[in-house]
Amino acid sequence: MIIVLDKRHTSEQKTRLVNFIRERGGKPSEMTLRDRLVVTFNESLNGKLDFLAFAGVEQVVTTQTEFKKSSWETQSEPTRIKVGNAEIGPGRFNVIAGPCAVESADQYLRIAHKAKKAGAHFLRGGAFKPRTSPFSFQGLGRSGLEILAEARKETDLPIITEALDVRDVEFVYKVTDVIQVGSRNMQNFPLLREVGKTDKPVLLKRGLAATIQEWLLAAEYVLEGGNSQVVLCERGIRSFDQETRNFLDLAAVPIVHGKSHLPVLVDPSHALGRRDLVAPMTKAALAAGANGVMIEIHDEPETALSDGFQAIHPDNLEDIIKDLKRMGAALDIYVP
Amino acid sequence: MIIVLDKRHTSEQKTRLVNFIRERGGKPSEMTLRDRLVVTFNESLNGKLDFLAFAGVEQVVTTQTEFKKSSWETQSEPTRIKVGNAEIGPGRFNVIAGPCAVESADQYLRIAHKAKKAGAHFLRGGAFKPRTSPFSFQGLGRSGLEILAEARKETDLPIITEALDVRDVEFVYKVTDVIQVGSRNMQNFPLLREVGKTDKPVLLKRGLAATIQEWLLAAEYVLEGGNSQVVLCERGIRSFDQETRNFLDLAAVPIVHGKSHLPVLVDPSHALGRRDLVAPMTKAALAAGANGVMIEIHDEPETALSDGFQAIHPDNLEDIIKDLKRMGAALDIYVP
Amino acid sequence: MIIVLDKRHTSEQKTRLVNFIRERGGKPSEMTLRDRLVVTFNESLNGKLDFLAFAGVEQVVTTQTEFKKSSWETQSEPTRIKVGNAEIGPGRFNVIAGPCAVESADQYLRIAHKAKKAGAHFLRGGAFKPRTSPFSFQGLGRSGLEILAEARKETDLPIITEALDVRDVEFVYKVTDVIQVGSRNMQNFPLLREVGKTDKPVLLKRGLAATIQEWLLAAEYVLEGGNSQVVLCERGIRSFDQETRNFLDLAAVPIVHGKSHLPVLVDPSHALGRRDLVAPMTKAALAAGANGVMIEIHDEPETALSDGFQAIHPDNLEDIIKDLKRMGAALDIYVP
Amino acid sequence: MIIVLDKRHTSEQKTRLVNFIRERGGKPSEMTLRDRLVVTFNESLNGKLDFLAFAGVEQVVTTQTEFKKSSWETQSEPTRIKVGNAEIGPGRFNVIAGPCAVESADQYLRIAHKAKKAGAHFLRGGAFKPRTSPFSFQGLGRSGLEILAEARKETDLPIITEALDVRDVEFVYKVTDVIQVGSRNMQNFPLLREVGKTDKPVLLKRGLAATIQEWLLAAEYVLEGGNSQVVLCERGIRSFDQETRNFLDLAAVPIVHGKSHLPVLVDPSHALGRRDLVAPMTKAALAAGANGVMIEIHDEPETALSDGFQAIHPDNLEDIIKDLKRMGAALDIYVP
Repeated sequence: MIIVLDKRHTSEQKTRLVNFIRERGGKPSEMTLRDRLVVTFNESLNGKLDFLAFAGVEQVVTTQTEFKKSSWETQSEPTRIKVGNAEIGPGRFNVIAGPCAVESADQYLRIAHKAKKAGAHFLRGGAFKPRTSPFSFQGLGRSGLEILAEARKETDLPIITEALDVRDVEFVYKVTDVIQVGSRNMQNFPLLREVGKTDKPVLLKRGLAATIQEWLLAAEYVLEGGNSQVVLCERGIRSFDQETRNFLDLAAVPIVHGKSHLPVLVDPSHALGRRDLVAPMTKAALAAGANGVMIEIHDEPETALSDGFQAIHPDNLEDIIKDLKRMGAALDIYVP
Repeated sequence: MIIVLDKRHTSEQKTRLVNFIRERGGKPSEMTLRDRLVVTFNESLNGKLDFLAFAGVEQVVTTQTEFKKSSWETQSEPTRIKVGNAEIGPGRFNVIAGPCAVESADQYLRIAHKAKKAGAHFLRGGAFKPRTSPFSFQGLGRSGLEILAEARKETDLPIITEALDVRDVEFVYKVTDVIQVGSRNMQNFPLLREVGKTDKPVLLKRGLAATIQEWLLAAEYVLEGGNSQVVLCERGIRSFDQETRNFLDLAAVPIVHGKSHLPVLVDPSHALGRRDLVAPMTKAALAAGANGVMIEIHDEPETALSDGFQAIHPDNLEDIIKDLKRMGAALDIYVP
Repeated sequence: MIIVLDKRHTSEQKTRLVNFIRERGGKPSEMTLRDRLVVTFNESLNGKLDFLAFAGVEQVVTTQTEFKKSSWETQSEPTRIKVGNAEIGPGRFNVIAGPCAVESADQYLRIAHKAKKAGAHFLRGGAFKPRTSPFSFQGLGRSGLEILAEARKETDLPIITEALDVRDVEFVYKVTDVIQVGSRNMQNFPLLREVGKTDKPVLLKRGLAATIQEWLLAAEYVLEGGNSQVVLCERGIRSFDQETRNFLDLAAVPIVHGKSHLPVLVDPSHALGRRDLVAPMTKAALAAGANGVMIEIHDEPETALSDGFQAIHPDNLEDIIKDLKRMGAALDIYVP
Repeated sequence: MIIVLDKRHTSEQKTRLVNFIRERGGKPSEMTLRDRLVVTFNESLNGKLDFLAFAGVEQVVTTQTEFKKSSWETQSEPTRIKVGNAEIGPGRFNVIAGPCAVESADQYLRIAHKAKKAGAHFLRGGAFKPRTSPFSFQGLGRSGLEILAEARKETDLPIITEALDVRDVEFVYKVTDVIQVGSRNMQNFPLLREVGKTDKPVLLKRGLAATIQEWLLAAEYVLEGGNSQVVLCERGIRSFDQETRNFLDLAAVPIVHGKSHLPVLVDPSHALGRRDLVAPMTKAALAAGANGVMIEIHDEPETALSDGFQAIHPDNLEDIIKDLKRMGAALDIYVP
């Protein structure tokens, strides 16, 4: 820990700080850099803000990584997550597709088959939907989960679906292959702890205004529970521009890869909220090094109960996957 | 609903749209404004995004308020919330004070008495703490609730404390006077529904990147449950400037007052994360029309287990309350 | 300068860094904090980014203030700026009022007299208007300056008006009492240098996405030129919420006061773009410690050629100033 | 124009509005949608904000594109800009490379040759540098321009360099092939007008907090002057995350392509400020449909006077260009 004192600090303030460090077993040393006194000592985690509480302190610098299990300092091999025959991890690019919400058995199964035909590797679809307004369609709930189970049986594709409520985790667990934690719940710590107790992979979406550090620390809640199978998913950050629902922060992909061994996906559909941007940003995600994408598809987007405006048609998905395969061949990335 | 079609829409696209409206019982009419075709009809709620799903649609305008029970259209009198002898509502300014977290009976009771002596009207303090990192102090949990109960008994001041987990709501309910939902949980819909079923006031903090509309829609989740006692609390929005933890959006106070009958508080401590800004921004909150503030205090901020850097000393609180009373007298606002 | 090396740095990288420092006359010393090597030396300004250019460097911390003349380290007394009989500085709150743009002699003089009658202390009004679109009214230009001169003569109130183009500074200079640099030009360095050569006060608006540090560094450009009379003005930062044009960052006022001796004003009209928010946020500005406000007024806002939607009526201004005087009396701030 | 009146508007307010429209030659018609009165008429440009100035108005919707010459409504073919043998336009991807600043003839010419050898198609380099702090290196000025002229002569690559001051445009014009307007000057309207009078291509960088609409309207200032050769360049938007200097808004590329016939480049170096992100985001830019990139290179980044921390080595550039060619072949984009 490096603590820079204010130019105008009093000697009493300094003594208080130094004594505090000593009382807790630290061995502070002092040096002067230009017109500032600097106190350093070997730190224990999370002390940064505590030291800003001291009068006379100007800056506090920690020299330690705040996240542990997600960091390259803990694990030197990239995490690979196997789900049935599929695998999420380095050198591969998976396409997860499906409608935003499970609306009915007929709708979901029909689109699931089209997703498979177009070349998708996983199915997505929400049985529990977090909606900004209580007056919007909230999902079919547990009966939606049964439809997802049926879709897996019929298509043999693994399923990703969201758990919203800690009390639903056991029901979602029974049906899904990957448990999704949505962006609004990125810092719902009881939920993170609950999915951290399971043995199924967790897809953790980035919060709308979360820094990458906050996102990785949220992943730590899951990892701390003993579940090492975390997949991150960038899905847009709050925007000042009304052109799109959010900004898509694609640079988050290589930034996370630089810090963590966990795989990272991109969700261009929710990030941008516009179907015309799905194809270019999916290709850009592959080029940026993402381990896959989540794409909303619908064969009748106008009648979708949720987010139809951002869903692409299954036929477009097929075209996109063809482009991805060509790009993958050029960049040495396997697109199954 | 007003739907502006793209200049280059096809007649097939228009027909599809118009038929869709008719099939759902709407009576669309058309007009041309300059070079754009405009389709209008009497709307039902939440159709905006659905119509953006149609190819050929450029803009969709809804003419209806999306929030219902929180709006002046539903209730013409400002909401007044009575808590024991205290009241949160128009023409009054309440000061809620206490440490960030309940750390021990000794710490909490000592500071609670100092808060009362300084003139605070409510006590705050977290038994369950949402922390960005799993390695930070997470609160005393249920044993912290008992300390809060004791503090109320000793000081006779009402208590505000946070519920994090739907499974803890019943325990928080038994002890607290006002249930807080924190900013990270503003869109934790199961939690909003759960507190919406209770008969105690709910303090709903604004999310870090929430628009005012999203915040009011979150309040609707509580109101929909039958609980009409919602108090909003601005606590800062994500900042690009590292000077402070967040930006404090004080204009949110008069904006909410213009849209809703619900009272609005301000939390300058969490919003800004700097104790030197608490006094000026508390006074600014009163001037902007807020119905009160939440302030973190600590008598030994350096030893606080959480957020000590933003806590002010109880003596400073006393000075601030004196200023508030003078300002209140000048502006005709009652500071008890 | 404190340089924290990456845990995985090579000894070659360290040697390169240390040699670089020595070659430039620095005396680096090394220490180990937990698992990180830290190199420190007495810095010269602006080296921070240079050191991030070195491979193996993880963090760089400067211990020196980047702004000089605007800082309390250079001047211990708050700056007071006298303009005719008026003064902008500590303990005082000035109201600058006028229409957004000078539209005609008749319009401007009529409103100027109403501003004076309502109690305003300065007149504002743009002869050169920076407009987002080239198709919007761009101001009367030099003939607008003549109208401003006439307004000063008739009302005896000092004038604040904007210079947009370095080639116009001399013309603006001749007429105005205070030269305004608008938010879009906060980092127009040739313009800052040009007004820095004059002997008239400069009102420097904060850019829409400027940090406080960037704003103060922009002020340094003016101060470096020899002009010590800089007044800062907060006018809103980019917003993700469409409720208002921008967020008003009122906490910028006490933050700047903590760093700099320069006075700070607030422009609630441009910041928020809504006339209903002008009164509460003007009062909040006084409470937060601002040295004054800039307010747009218009007696026929619907016919204004620019920004009429945010202008208040002169009668409202009169009411606001009455409130400000009452608040000033309570808080010991002089409102002339 | 579509004007939605507030539910509580008075009939006097409506009459005032309708008369105003009639007086200006508009033919208003009225309709009721649910509980709102809506007034429509054929609009002329820029009236939106004027109508928000009317009391009783709740929403105003324009049905007309605000930008003219940059829009597909004006020109149906994508703009192609020829510079010597090079061309910026559809189906092509250009790499512009060079150091941030021209520091000396030796430094610039050495790196220019390396850029050419690595496969770059244009040279970049600032003679006039806009720097946040007046204490940073400000560029060599006009003598830097001479070095750029020499570099072009020696390498036969076209030059892109920035004009900061309207008074320098003529000097920059003489030397450069493309005149750059930097992000801080995106709304420096006198400068936009000045470069709009020339017959050389203008590279217009996006401002740090500019919406896409504001960016295109800034381009209109250049186009209005008669200069149709505008190239847009995304270079990052203000970030709340300290991981990178800014967010890179790559989706801006397909969004602009949807609205405008102008080409769009991406500057990953300035956007992100980290050399490790240049390669992945350059590849992502191609995949997203950009017409090229600007990349900072330096052979001794540690000694660069400006932004060395974000410059990549010329050898890395060579590798990147190889990847781009492979990707281009797969996606049918020509990388010269």
